[in-house]
Amino acid sequence: MTPDDSRTVYDGKLFDVTVERWGEHEREIVEHPGAVAIVAVDSDDTVALVRQRREAARKLLLELPAGTLEEGESPLESARRELEEETGLTGGTWRELAAFYTTPGFCRERMHLFIAEGVERGDARPEDDEDLEVVRWRVDEIPARLPEIEDAKTLAGLLLYLSKR
Amino acid sequence: MTPDDSRTVYDGKLFDVTVERWGEHEREIVEHPGAVAIVAVDSDDTVALVRQRREAARKLLLELPAGTLEEGESPLESARRELEEETGLTGGTWRELAAFYTTPGFCRERMHLFIAEGVERGDARPEDDEDLEVVRWRVDEIPARLPEIEDAKTLAGLLLYLSKR
Repeated sequence: MTPDDSRTVYDGKLFDVTVERWGEHEREIVEHPGAVAIVAVDSDDTVALVRQRREAARKLLLELPAGTLEEGESPLESARRELEEETGLTGGTWRELAAFYTTPGFCRERMHLFIAEGVERGDARPEDDEDLEVVRWRVDEIPARLPEIEDAKTLAGLLLYLSKR
Repeated sequence: MTPDDSRTVYDGKLFDVTVERWGEHEREIVEHPGAVAIVAVDSDDTVALVRQRREAARKLLLELPAGTLEEGESPLESARRELEEETGLTGGTWRELAAFYTTPGFCRERMHLFIAEGVERGDARPEDDEDLEVVRWRVDEIPARLPEIEDAKTLAGLLLYLSKR
């Protein structure tokens, strides 16, 4: 499945935009290298979330630790790096639980969702332009607190985790 | 929460791209009017999914019926319209189950997730450039078939529905 033609119409910093021609139709697509998100649970059965300012939403959102794949990095390497940077959590037993497109109607982003169980606490090292607060929920609080979540990957990740426990 | 400055850097057909300045940082944002997705269950306890070609993913994906908000339309009106167009399903008892950002790191899209129970079958009228196949799953099959889903809103929607039943 390949387009008849493709051209870059916007060359950005975080992403480019491509217009692809498929037969009679054109598709406008946000190019994205892919991403990771992590459900990280420690030995006290608490899950780590991050609260951060999301300019696109004009508000603070509570989300799973997550980030963009960097060049040459495997999804698992990226997930371990992002989790440690954002929350200070390291170690644990990891497995990939799912991979999904976040907005397949107009964006190439594919996200790998990992579960890390038995992680250990350390110091977070957020990137310069990230202003993150780490929030911990007991796993048994998750169902009652889901209405606080307004992010698709976080809803999907927490619910998948609960369904697999 | 408002940016110090904002400029349109790409003026597209489906979406625009804006660069916002927030203090020392710039944010590149895909402008999007918002969207709806629907978990529609009929009286035989089957849920309707649509299989469609997703050029951004270069494959067919199985997803909840969904679509983009049109100007002047409420989320519920949009959801009823999209469900009927894509699947032919009408009627039923509706409620909004959640609203979430699909990719809050770089896109304005906020999605309203509806549940429609007791919907009735009719004729689908897909838009010209949509090539949709309606697929029905029994609700009790959903947990075992989740690995077939590679779309974030569909995972979140089906799992939220199961958790609320």
